[in-house]
Amino acid sequence: MIIRKANVRAGGAEPQTWRYYSDDGGLTQFGAYVETLQPGGGSSERHWHEQEDEFLLVLAGQVTVIEESGTSVLEPGDAACWPAGVANAHRVVNRSDAPCTYVIVGTRVTHDVCHYPDTGRVLHTEGEQWRIEKTDGTVLKSGRCKSPPGRD
Amino acid sequence: MIIRKANVRAGGAEPQTWRYYSDDGGLTQFGAYVETLQPGGGSSERHWHEQEDEFLLVLAGQVTVIEESGTSVLEPGDAACWPAGVANAHRVVNRSDAPCTYVIVGTRVTHDVCHYPDTGRVLHTEGEQWRIEKTDGTVLKSGRCKSPPGRD
Repeated sequence: MIIRKANVRAGGAEPQTWRYYSDDGGLTQFGAYVETLQPGGGSSERHWHEQEDEFLLVLAGQVTVIEESGTSVLEPGDAACWPAGVANAHRVVNRSDAPCTYVIVGTRVTHDVCHYPDTGRVLHTEGEQWRIEKTDGTVLKSGRCKSPPGRD
Repeated sequence: MIIRKANVRAGGAEPQTWRYYSDDGGLTQFGAYVETLQPGGGSSERHWHEQEDEFLLVLAGQVTVIEESGTSVLEPGDAACWPAGVANAHRVVNRSDAPCTYVIVGTRVTHDVCHYPDTGRVLHTEGEQWRIEKTDGTVLKSGRCKSPPGRD
């Protein structure tokens, strides 16, 4: 199925917007979105997944990636890989003065644990249910996933 | 883990070359490669997977996608999605007079059946073993996969 750039469903709000290619195309095993960050924008706080591989490839602009080992500025054609289960918490920010765009791919799993070390939170996803715990196991919040689980 | 464009492992031979981003980055749940086709080049014959989602996003040039429903010319930002189990056999060719480049993502599964309707062949992958059959079940060829299964 062909997905035209001009027609792909868009979401989010500036400074962070997405184009939901894989959803429009009916993929379920992984998500593949194109995300644009305006200057000063950033993705969610630093995190790592126990069960999901993640891949980022820069398409345009300069993307600053913050990982456990430090900060890197990525240019078009540079990429980042975050294998499932590797405790390399990461986030993406735009510290340049122009928009940046990248494709981000993540495996879809029904059960995952996502760690946010900067705030000491842990997100458990179990089928349609999710809950956020502190690292001591106290439940802070819980709910039911929208479809697809864990996204949007 | 950061993968720099200048350092990513390259393979294939013109007119069809790849950059193996996801392998360099240690991902195992899906493959994410950047492929370049020179004018006149093409990917493997038309096929569809029973078990693997596939995603293609054009990065540069004009990419001609041949599917069951016909032929489409994709420009940068256009994409194609091929969900697992949908009998939409496809291939990619470069009919332009300049190179074209796209990122291609495919789920890694240990067991798959891949159909090549134009030649009446069916590729069965079962763990480390593979075999190619005719549609009547006659085995044409069999062997052991290199790592990772089914790729490279």
